[in-house]
Amino acid sequence: MERYVLRLRAADQPGIIHTMTGGIVATGGNILDSAQYSDESSGQLSVRVEFESEKDPEVIRTELVDGLARFDPIVELRRGSDRRRALIMVSKLDHCLDDLLYRYRRGELPIEIPMIVSNHEDLRSVVEAAGVPFHHIPVTAATKAAAEQELSSLVQESGADFIVLARYMQVLSDDFCARFAGRIINIHHSFLPSFKGAKPYHQAKGRGVKLIGATAHYVTADLDEGPIIEQDVVRVDHRSSAEHLVVIGRDVERKVLSRAVQLHADDRVFLSGQHTVILA
Amino acid sequence: MERYVLRLRAADQPGIIHTMTGGIVATGGNILDSAQYSDESSGQLSVRVEFESEKDPEVIRTELVDGLARFDPIVELRRGSDRRRALIMVSKLDHCLDDLLYRYRRGELPIEIPMIVSNHEDLRSVVEAAGVPFHHIPVTAATKAAAEQELSSLVQESGADFIVLARYMQVLSDDFCARFAGRIINIHHSFLPSFKGAKPYHQAKGRGVKLIGATAHYVTADLDEGPIIEQDVVRVDHRSSAEHLVVIGRDVERKVLSRAVQLHADDRVFLSGQHTVILA
Amino acid sequence: MERYVLRLRAADQPGIIHTMTGGIVATGGNILDSAQYSDESSGQLSVRVEFESEKDPEVIRTELVDGLARFDPIVELRRGSDRRRALIMVSKLDHCLDDLLYRYRRGELPIEIPMIVSNHEDLRSVVEAAGVPFHHIPVTAATKAAAEQELSSLVQESGADFIVLARYMQVLSDDFCARFAGRIINIHHSFLPSFKGAKPYHQAKGRGVKLIGATAHYVTADLDEGPIIEQDVVRVDHRSSAEHLVVIGRDVERKVLSRAVQLHADDRVFLSGQHTVILA
Amino acid sequence: MERYVLRLRAADQPGIIHTMTGGIVATGGNILDSAQYSDESSGQLSVRVEFESEKDPEVIRTELVDGLARFDPIVELRRGSDRRRALIMVSKLDHCLDDLLYRYRRGELPIEIPMIVSNHEDLRSVVEAAGVPFHHIPVTAATKAAAEQELSSLVQESGADFIVLARYMQVLSDDFCARFAGRIINIHHSFLPSFKGAKPYHQAKGRGVKLIGATAHYVTADLDEGPIIEQDVVRVDHRSSAEHLVVIGRDVERKVLSRAVQLHADDRVFLSGQHTVILA
Repeated sequence: MERYVLRLRAADQPGIIHTMTGGIVATGGNILDSAQYSDESSGQLSVRVEFESEKDPEVIRTELVDGLARFDPIVELRRGSDRRRALIMVSKLDHCLDDLLYRYRRGELPIEIPMIVSNHEDLRSVVEAAGVPFHHIPVTAATKAAAEQELSSLVQESGADFIVLARYMQVLSDDFCARFAGRIINIHHSFLPSFKGAKPYHQAKGRGVKLIGATAHYVTADLDEGPIIEQDVVRVDHRSSAEHLVVIGRDVERKVLSRAVQLHADDRVFLSGQHTVILA
Repeated sequence: MERYVLRLRAADQPGIIHTMTGGIVATGGNILDSAQYSDESSGQLSVRVEFESEKDPEVIRTELVDGLARFDPIVELRRGSDRRRALIMVSKLDHCLDDLLYRYRRGELPIEIPMIVSNHEDLRSVVEAAGVPFHHIPVTAATKAAAEQELSSLVQESGADFIVLARYMQVLSDDFCARFAGRIINIHHSFLPSFKGAKPYHQAKGRGVKLIGATAHYVTADLDEGPIIEQDVVRVDHRSSAEHLVVIGRDVERKVLSRAVQLHADDRVFLSGQHTVILA
Repeated sequence: MERYVLRLRAADQPGIIHTMTGGIVATGGNILDSAQYSDESSGQLSVRVEFESEKDPEVIRTELVDGLARFDPIVELRRGSDRRRALIMVSKLDHCLDDLLYRYRRGELPIEIPMIVSNHEDLRSVVEAAGVPFHHIPVTAATKAAAEQELSSLVQESGADFIVLARYMQVLSDDFCARFAGRIINIHHSFLPSFKGAKPYHQAKGRGVKLIGATAHYVTADLDEGPIIEQDVVRVDHRSSAEHLVVIGRDVERKVLSRAVQLHADDRVFLSGQHTVILA
Repeated sequence: MERYVLRLRAADQPGIIHTMTGGIVATGGNILDSAQYSDESSGQLSVRVEFESEKDPEVIRTELVDGLARFDPIVELRRGSDRRRALIMVSKLDHCLDDLLYRYRRGELPIEIPMIVSNHEDLRSVVEAAGVPFHHIPVTAATKAAAEQELSSLVQESGADFIVLARYMQVLSDDFCARFAGRIINIHHSFLPSFKGAKPYHQAKGRGVKLIGATAHYVTADLDEGPIIEQDVVRVDHRSSAEHLVVIGRDVERKVLSRAVQLHADDRVFLSGQHTVILA
């Protein structure tokens, strides 16, 4: 028996679930876990199902797509043993990368990492020591367009399903963001929408907040405005300088980004309007 | 359109979900929310579905029960507007009662409270001020059997679906526990299985723990061993005396019991072997 | 032996602590608990000491003030048995008031409540049932100045040490804020600086955040910009409507405001520049 | 100016703090941070002070020790720039070691690691890649005494101040525990006192708890009974198998052990009777 993960999005209407479960039963499948959400504000139905079946994926896909055709859904079917491929991008800071690689090595993150790309050489040795190919794509104002072109090619060649910006410090172009909409995850080092922009920990110190946080979100052309996937906070007090907040915040950034990557790779995150629906 | 909540338990096997969704579709229903879990250790499938339909509950129930008969399931169907009825029991401490009544008055807890029963008179005025009938059933070693008989009658007369022990300080008999298995919720003032038995906060102080907690569980004949519904903890330090831990702990007890009552009343808690499955 | 709480603020310089402890020893005092913080950014030393002594407060105060005179400090001495007096202000929402009164009745909040003031009559019966005097001061654009004058008089007559805005929905004038600087605590129903202004839960829903929060702060002429005393958050997900966020948020508001009132009443909050130092 | 950390323990009595601050003032010191706690149950006063002074440590120590002699205290003085030396012990599991090394490399943990000792060879390459000497001391029933003798020698030679058992799977002898009382930190993979002994995550699964945790404690001859330094928990649900709880629990173990090491190395943990006082 093979384990499958099915994702479905459609404008909500009666009968979709029953038709879908019918397709699963028709191919000898047994549902192990399922969750769904009908978003009133966007009208979108989001469904995630895990099931077992002895049939081939193509047989199942055909059965489901044909059966559901009148609902015009977007259907994604993945063998549970096929892992999502994440292309990770970094600059010089390595704390988020360190956590992703730690969980990757232990099999805690259900991903493959075909390569890690950076605009600097600093982290090459860390990456290569982990047995992952490292690509250096320097970026200047003059070369930005060419750099993004090269990056696009690498995404395609590597078969990456999504991109993780693990404290990658370059802003991506609107075109690039649009091309990979819903497929680029960024970690912002504040509890958005507080402290957008640069030096959020210094802003947090200036405001005297009692909790600092981090936010993982899909990247859109509007900086720091993309749909939020995951957030968390940690308690701080008056004794922490801005520099100390940076240190404390690293732990939250690591945790939040790894959790967002796990949710995305596990097919649990659905874009619905400007928000995410998380079927966890 | 009427909103319905459907609960289903059965030995897991292929086809149950599809048959169930078929029954819902057949009565013109549209699924709004659904969750299920197949427990490998107990073999039990637990399902909770919310759906809308214009049909009467009896029509729907018949459709579902007939359609699903070959799976020999336990099916419960409730109109969303019909609230579960909770008979609350107290002794002298009122902090859990206070929180339940606060949320009840505001409509945060989806329950009706037909009456509150106590083995003491102390809280009569608080209860009656909230507009809820108060019944005093004193309990001594000699009268315990008769007291439980009276309590059973009150449960029946009041149409209570379940019993909440909001710091009720009498141990119920094995017979009573068995009769209402899975329908009595107790709050224990420790993070079980730590500190079973009496004076758990004094035990916690003696051990020097850095977190104290509370546990809401179904009552069984084995004291403090029933299936756990909800737990939470709060951080403490060396400065708290045992008496201060009692004060701090009250907040956790209130929160944990109210959350357990909410989950149960919302039909989200399923007994599965010695554990609970929470479809939240 | 009487228990005393001593607060001291001064521009930091060597010798203050030793002089202060000398003054305590000179009056036969024994220190039970002490904490201090020297804020580099503001240059202010904040000190809180609890000690026991058999001497009268006037003797101790004189000893301390004379001994410390060359450091030009602000010294406050309070008998531990003298509770800070809190004048509470409400409008129509009662969830924060309910929590304050619950903890007040049980002795968890070290305050006296001489009266509760509201710009509406709605909560009169709740307040009077708790045995606390209720004053109605209606506020319109035309009567605002007179209303604040009446409020000032009530603060003076009641001997209130500080004012708690427990979801009081009127903006206080700059003059009033300045007059009671560091003595008015407000609860804002968002995790500031996110979602300033009106309808923060609707803003939160709009942005799709995964945590919502509340902030207790001292009131200044800059709305929602005063020094933060306490903050907390709670996890939410896509299923919560804005109206449901309002319900969930009430619990955080209650908790955060009560904690801020406790810290303030226990003399643990020090203004230092635009921030607070909490010696907890 | 040099920064110093002073720790003091003594039977509590009036005048200790004033005498101590007098000693600091006498050597030109300025107090930056201080905390103290008088434990009623054990009668012990615990004090931690950070101060600046231009004097040499021997001058300060003499001044303090002589001045305080009549109180018969235990006084420890450390230059802030002198880091506590931690000898880390591991077996085959590397998740706690990984977190300690990560924070060590970034300077987040105020320690030196003179060496890492293991009863297995498995982690040699990880340790040596971090630039830390690795010592293999195999342990069998027959060689246990000799192995502990070798370990004692290594502690002495390396100048280690304390020992960290980062999932070291051998039980230390009573003699060894007594010799290094208050200087060996262990991480237990449960929220003690729940689930003592072997396979705590399997015990937790068996009981159906809703939170799992970890406990860092000083090692004593009574297994799993030593004074607790730090604890934390994480929420789990019915979906996690015992094996999955092991994976989830690793994150809590890492966090709790690193925090305990930080508190100990920062001189903030005081043994007081069977408990710890944490002056954080």
